[in-house]
Amino acid sequence: MASWEQLAADKRARLEKTIPAEWKIQNPPSGDSVFDYPAQSGILSPKELEITGTSATDLVAKLATGELKSVEVTLAFCKRAALAHQLLNTNLEFFPDAALAQAKELDEYFEKHKKPVGPLHGLPISLKDQLRVKGYETSMGYISWLGKYDTEESVMTTLLRKAGAVFYVKTSVPQTLMVCETVNNIIGRTVNPRNKNWSCGGSSGGEGAMVGFRGGIIGVGTDIGGSIRVPSAFNFLYGIRPSHGRMPYAKMANSMEGQETVHSVCGPIAHSVPDLKLFVTSVLSEEPWKYDSKVVPMPWRQWEEDAIKAKLSAGGLTLGFFNCDGNVLPHPPILRGVETVVSTLKQNGHTVVPWTPYKHDFAVDLINGIYASDGCADVLRDINASGEPAIPNIKDLLNPNIKAVGMNTLWDVQLKKWRYQCEYLEKWRELEAQLGKELDAIIAPITPTAAIRHDQFRYYGYASAINLLDFTSVVVPVTFADKAVDKKKESYQPLNDLDKLVQDEYDPEAYHGAPVAVQIIGRRLSEERTLAIAEEVGRLLGNSITP
Amino acid sequence: MASWEQLAADKRARLEKTIPAEWKIQNPPSGDSVFDYPAQSGILSPKELEITGTSATDLVAKLATGELKSVEVTLAFCKRAALAHQLLNTNLEFFPDAALAQAKELDEYFEKHKKPVGPLHGLPISLKDQLRVKGYETSMGYISWLGKYDTEESVMTTLLRKAGAVFYVKTSVPQTLMVCETVNNIIGRTVNPRNKNWSCGGSSGGEGAMVGFRGGIIGVGTDIGGSIRVPSAFNFLYGIRPSHGRMPYAKMANSMEGQETVHSVCGPIAHSVPDLKLFVTSVLSEEPWKYDSKVVPMPWRQWEEDAIKAKLSAGGLTLGFFNCDGNVLPHPPILRGVETVVSTLKQNGHTVVPWTPYKHDFAVDLINGIYASDGCADVLRDINASGEPAIPNIKDLLNPNIKAVGMNTLWDVQLKKWRYQCEYLEKWRELEAQLGKELDAIIAPITPTAAIRHDQFRYYGYASAINLLDFTSVVVPVTFADKAVDKKKESYQPLNDLDKLVQDEYDPEAYHGAPVAVQIIGRRLSEERTLAIAEEVGRLLGNSITP
Repeated sequence: MASWEQLAADKRARLEKTIPAEWKIQNPPSGDSVFDYPAQSGILSPKELEITGTSATDLVAKLATGELKSVEVTLAFCKRAALAHQLLNTNLEFFPDAALAQAKELDEYFEKHKKPVGPLHGLPISLKDQLRVKGYETSMGYISWLGKYDTEESVMTTLLRKAGAVFYVKTSVPQTLMVCETVNNIIGRTVNPRNKNWSCGGSSGGEGAMVGFRGGIIGVGTDIGGSIRVPSAFNFLYGIRPSHGRMPYAKMANSMEGQETVHSVCGPIAHSVPDLKLFVTSVLSEEPWKYDSKVVPMPWRQWEEDAIKAKLSAGGLTLGFFNCDGNVLPHPPILRGVETVVSTLKQNGHTVVPWTPYKHDFAVDLINGIYASDGCADVLRDINASGEPAIPNIKDLLNPNIKAVGMNTLWDVQLKKWRYQCEYLEKWRELEAQLGKELDAIIAPITPTAAIRHDQFRYYGYASAINLLDFTSVVVPVTFADKAVDKKKESYQPLNDLDKLVQDEYDPEAYHGAPVAVQIIGRRLSEERTLAIAEEVGRLLGNSITP
Repeated sequence: MASWEQLAADKRARLEKTIPAEWKIQNPPSGDSVFDYPAQSGILSPKELEITGTSATDLVAKLATGELKSVEVTLAFCKRAALAHQLLNTNLEFFPDAALAQAKELDEYFEKHKKPVGPLHGLPISLKDQLRVKGYETSMGYISWLGKYDTEESVMTTLLRKAGAVFYVKTSVPQTLMVCETVNNIIGRTVNPRNKNWSCGGSSGGEGAMVGFRGGIIGVGTDIGGSIRVPSAFNFLYGIRPSHGRMPYAKMANSMEGQETVHSVCGPIAHSVPDLKLFVTSVLSEEPWKYDSKVVPMPWRQWEEDAIKAKLSAGGLTLGFFNCDGNVLPHPPILRGVETVVSTLKQNGHTVVPWTPYKHDFAVDLINGIYASDGCADVLRDINASGEPAIPNIKDLLNPNIKAVGMNTLWDVQLKKWRYQCEYLEKWRELEAQLGKELDAIIAPITPTAAIRHDQFRYYGYASAINLLDFTSVVVPVTFADKAVDKKKESYQPLNDLDKLVQDEYDPEAYHGAPVAVQIIGRRLSEERTLAIAEEVGRLLGNSITP
């Protein structure tokens, strides 16, 4: 039987072969950033650079009129994804030939019928490795899963395919998925295109790096504790964690499959809110609730988006904000990011009031216990099956003092979760009563740091408290860390040991230029409203990029 | 410390005192049926008999114009509920004085403001004991819970109160709630108003008996395995088991609180679909999702009801049906009930095709395991705390061979549940593809028997498989067992031991006159459509009663 090292080496060799010789980088760029490399590579034509620089919304518009062919769009993104893998280590599966064949079929359909097959006709969509695509390997970063080729597809894959999407790549994840960085024993570490010393985030880190690098225009991620939002934030992208039940998840691979106390959810990462909306509306138009029992039968509610738009032209939005959850104070760039958003909104006539984070310490403890409620038996089984070591980043998760909880303890935890959620809603109502109007959303940090240096990610609570609440959250890119203004705090009195650890890690020099983001938090299943608010925030910041 | 018998006797004595002397029955009726007793009792005036014979929809219309006062309506139902308790043993709490005081306040509000406080202004609503009302005892049939008075209310209670409802009674349930009959060691057994030898159903059996007897006009029940639908069926009433997340459940008492693998849901029991709809729309108008995190933000979708109404005037409905789930064949009256519905629908131009029940044996086994996944530790704790014995009806549930399952086993069960739900949706889609049109609902038995004799309820699967699927289900009363036509099957070859046990229990004489019902099953969160279909079925059967 092959050792785990041999199995990993074999997989890497197979991945290497997926990249045609003419897409191989002969002279790798020096320097920490590869962000601008594609234009210098000589591998993409000017038109291909233009295509990969276009928004998804514009691409589908051009594909739907025949102005662009799916084959040329797909080829452009395949080339750029090949560069991404060579520079950033993004891919767990890459199948440009199959993608081009699929694109050709779509072009032929268009030629024959003079209409697109669906709202994503011909658009390449990048997939996190959890999404099953028939005929390809889903390893999810576990050596022991290598060699298992999917015979059926995830519902999300099926519906995206029906909507016209083209698949070409499945991107890397951290071993277990329970980490906001991306490292595994199969292909190693995925890095940030803006600076290889920074993390691309995780667990949908392959998507963050791929879309950040424009090797993909929309990436599909999942999030049970920040895994869509952190890669979005670290790559200056938009990303939505929909509430559970809005997007299909059935038949996707997962760690801790069947765990339902806190659900992982599926959602897109992209360069703009319109591109996120394109994805969400396209999936909803396929009626996912007829395929996945956990999806709520709730089509896109245009009237909800319109309700926010109406406020923009009459009286403005009413938003809460906080910059510290009481557990860990964010680094100076993040505090400045929140302040920037708040002051920009106020200057534009919106009402922004402080939000008191309600028992976030309780929430973070509760969800951490939920993640480990089987004493990590599930993830340890899949790690140990091959003899591979656990990645260092999951040391806390695999704390040997953590034991599986009994059924009645689980029920107590679930009851505490429900009560906490209801109390949070009560606080929301109380503030609305005080203000005499609807509270439209809450602005908050999504991580305590800008795009972080490797193996330094310590505190998931800004993201995970929102997972416990199952609120809708949209990440909006704000600015970049700046050593000239984001000075290290002198004589800071930490709130606790973890806060000290996080605060001590701040280094203005190391973080200089790292993306800074916030999350916009709406109540459960408020995707239409929260996206509309995020779009307005991005617009006011000047970050609603369509290059 | 008082013995459990003393505690129960004390509670019964306290209940006895809640009934004023002038409402006491001096000469109890002889005979098995008390259905017609109120008119003969001399305790209700002709106008009170008329009020208690009026639909909820008409009552709120008259209360909203001042044609009726809440005090007179409340008094009428209090009197009739007092009779119900004396004849049927329905009440666990009864508070007519507080109800009349609440009604008086509502009348004063109306007098002053010339408008109702909400859509249920002044209407008495009967509550299953699980609903907490400030100041009253929630025992839920457990001796050990006696003496605990609620200091906060369930969200459903709060929102009904906001909508204008008056509370006057909390009705009995079986010990543990996990039985479709109603018997506990506090007040004993609740019986069926049409025949005291028949069960009123359970676990919302107090509501079934109370509303069946018109001691209440709308009753609030809960359902995790038939507990709204069986009492509706056994009392010739309509009842809806909404899908999880449509109606609020937060802060209600429950067995196995915090168990989330299959959710108990809350819903109304009433005499007509318009009265069910009145309840559902009234609760939704209070935006329950802002109070209970598990409620989906989904107001009443009139367009969904209208979609069904449009089909009625163009082409008709498309319905599936089955009369046997493959586990237990229903008794002859139920088979006739299903046939009656099918033939009536066909005669009226609707399309009705056979539905093949998909793996209902698997579904029933799975949900039975879920009910007992803590090895029944939770219910045993509450039974044993007082020393009371378990009621005989939960013998199977408390099988000592049942052990608590571990966390990974629970996750496997949850995964199986999800896959099964998705497969069921696939079967639904397949039939739609065959038919070339939407399948609007499925008609099926809700129990294998008409209103059953005491302690004979054995098979929950017709109800519980639908709970596992989380489909919306509405019970429609169809007819009554008739010994002249519903002959016992000769030389029946049973499917299995349980089927034999159920089939052997059929006795045309004993069941003669017992209510027969079906359930109309729609996909998840299809309350508007499924109610509209149920209304049409009832109308065609001539059972859309508004006396």
